Amino acid sequence: MPGLPPSSKLITMAIVLTVLLLGLGGAAHGRRRLVSDDEDEPCKKMTLYYHDILYNGVNNTANATSAASTKPTALSTTHWKNGTYFGTLVTFDDPMTAGKALPVAGEEPVARAQGFYLYDKQESYNSWFGFSIVFNSTAHKGTINLLGANLMDEKTRDLSVGGGTGDFFMTRGICTLKLDAAEGAVYFRLKMDIKLYECYV
Amino acid sequence: MPGLPPSSKLITMAIVLTVLLLGLGGAAHGRRRLVSDDEDEPCKKMTLYYHDILYNGVNNTANATSAASTKPTALSTTHWKNGTYFGTLVTFDDPMTAGKALPVAGEEPVARAQGFYLYDKQESYNSWFGFSIVFNSTAHKGTINLLGANLMDEKTRDLSVGGGTGDFFMTRGICTLKLDAAEGAVYFRLKMDIKLYECYV
Amino acid sequence: MPGLPPSSKLITMAIVLTVLLLGLGGAAHGRRRLVSDDEDEPCKKMTLYYHDILYNGVNNTANATSAASTKPTALSTTHWKNGTYFGTLVTFDDPMTAGKALPVAGEEPVARAQGFYLYDKQESYNSWFGFSIVFNSTAHKGTINLLGANLMDEKTRDLSVGGGTGDFFMTRGICTLKLDAAEGAVYFRLKMDIKLYECYV
Repeated sequence: MPGLPPSSKLITMAIVLTVLLLGLGGAAHGRRRLVSDDEDEPCKKMTLYYHDILYNGVNNTANATSAASTKPTALSTTHWKNGTYFGTLVTFDDPMTAGKALPVAGEEPVARAQGFYLYDKQESYNSWFGFSIVFNSTAHKGTINLLGANLMDEKTRDLSVGGGTGDFFMTRGICTLKLDAAEGAVYFRLKMDIKLYECYV
Repeated sequence: MPGLPPSSKLITMAIVLTVLLLGLGGAAHGRRRLVSDDEDEPCKKMTLYYHDILYNGVNNTANATSAASTKPTALSTTHWKNGTYFGTLVTFDDPMTAGKALPVAGEEPVARAQGFYLYDKQESYNSWFGFSIVFNSTAHKGTINLLGANLMDEKTRDLSVGGGTGDFFMTRGICTLKLDAAEGAVYFRLKMDIKLYECYV
Repeated sequence: MPGLPPSSKLITMAIVLTVLLLGLGGAAHGRRRLVSDDEDEPCKKMTLYYHDILYNGVNNTANATSAASTKPTALSTTHWKNGTYFGTLVTFDDPMTAGKALPVAGEEPVARAQGFYLYDKQESYNSWFGFSIVFNSTAHKGTINLLGANLMDEKTRDLSVGGGTGDFFMTRGICTLKLDAAEGAVYFRLKMDIKLYECYV
C-alpha cells in the first residue's frame, strides 16, 4: 500500500492483527477453546471419590464393582510369591461420589469410572490405569479419559487426562490421586482431584 | 523510544506484535501447527467403517479379525450370568473401509484398527477402547491413537483421539461411533466419524 | 472513542492486542506453557534405551522384567500356529538407561517403563503399547504417558506421548522406537527418541 499515509498503513496492520488474533482466540458457532497457561489456575476443577470393591471370589458378588480379568503371572507367583500381583489386570465399573460415602441403595452416583488397572511392578505395588469417568446426569454429560501410572509408594500421584467428550470435549489435564481409605484387599477409596487446563466453554 | 513520533512507536509495536504472532502461529521448516477453536470446524475430518469379526471358537478362524484374550470374570458369570462379558478383553486387527462393504479378497483396506476393547460394565454392555488406526497407503501413512468409553446404550458416543504420528503427527480430536450393522455376536460394523482439531499441515 | 485522533485509537488497539497476546502467551505463578510449532524443534528431547527381558517360564525368574498376562488366543494358535502371539498381553516393569548397557547390580536405572504391550496383528508381529516412563531421580521426577502402535515391520515407528506429570506436566509429543538389539524371544532393546512439543517450563 505505497500510496497510503503511515497511520492508514497501521490501521490496516492492526486490523490484520486483530483478524489473526480472532482466528487464534477463536470466536465460534459452538464452544470456544480456552487454554490455561498457569499450572496454578486450571480452567475447570473438581474433586470426586472413587470406590473400588474387588470381587473376592467368595461372598461379595452382589456389591463387588471390580474383578480380576487375569491371574498374577507365573513370574509373580514363583519369584515374588504373589505379593505384588504383577501382571494382574483388574476391570472396574466403580461408582464415583462427591462425598466420601458410597451411594445408598437406588442412589445414582455422580459418575462412574469404567476401565482397568494393571499391576505392573515386581518388588512392590504399582498399577497402570486406563479408564473413563462417565458422567450422565443433569449436571454433566460426557466422559473424561485418563491414562497413567498409579505410583503407590508416593503419597499423591498424578494421572494424565488425555482427552474428553461431551461437556469435557477435547479437555486435557491431570488427576491427582490419594488413597483415602482401605479395607483389606477388598475395598479402597481414592480421592481424585481433577484439574483441567484445556477446556471448551 | 521517547524521541520517536507516535506513529513510529506504533510501527515498532506493530512489528513486535507481528513477530510475536509469527512465533505463535509458527512458520516452520517442517509442518505448521494448526489449532481449530471451533467445535464445528475440525481441521481434518473423515469417515471410516470399522468391521469386527469375532472368533467364535468353532468355524471362523479363516476370516475372524478379533478374539477374546481373557474370559469373562467369575463375577460376571456367577452374578450377571455372563450377559455382559464384564472383564473380557478382546484383541482386534480389524479392517477399516471408506464404504460399508468388507474388503474383497486381495483388496487392501483403507486402514487397519489394531488394539483392544474391554467389556467394563456389569449390568449392561459397555466397553473401553485403546487402539490405533494404522494407515499405510499412498493416500495416508501414519497412525491415529484413540482411547475412551464406548457407551453402548447411547445412539452415538465419542472416543478421544489422544495423539497421532506420521501424516497425523500430534493430532487431537474426537471419534464419533455409531453402530451401523450387527450379525449376532460375531460381526458388527461401526461408523467412525473422525474429527481432528489439532493438525500439523 | 469517536473524539480521539487516529493515532490514539491505534495506541489503544495496540494495547488491547498486547494484553490479548500476554493472555495467550501466559505469564504464570508456576510454570509457563511453551508450545513448539515446528516439527523439527521440540521443546524437550531425550534418548533412552528400553530393556525387556521376557519371563521364559523356566529359568529366568531372577532377572526377568516382563511376563505374559494372557496366553495367545485360540484363534492365534489354531490358525496362525502361534507365530504372532495374537492377543497376548505382556506386562512389563523395564529399566531404561541412557546408554545401551543394562544397569549393573545395585545401580538405579535412569527411569522405569511400566505398563503393557499387546500383540495385535494376525499375520505378522505388531503390538500396542500403553505405559508410563517413570522418573524418580534428582535429575527428573514425574511420568511420561504413552500410547500407540509398535509397527514392527517398519524400521522406526512412532508412539504418542499423550500426557505427563511432575517435571513433564501436561506434555505432549512423540516417541520414535527402533529395535536396537534382540536375543531370541527373551531379550530385546529399543532405542526410544522422545520428542516433546508441549512443555511447561
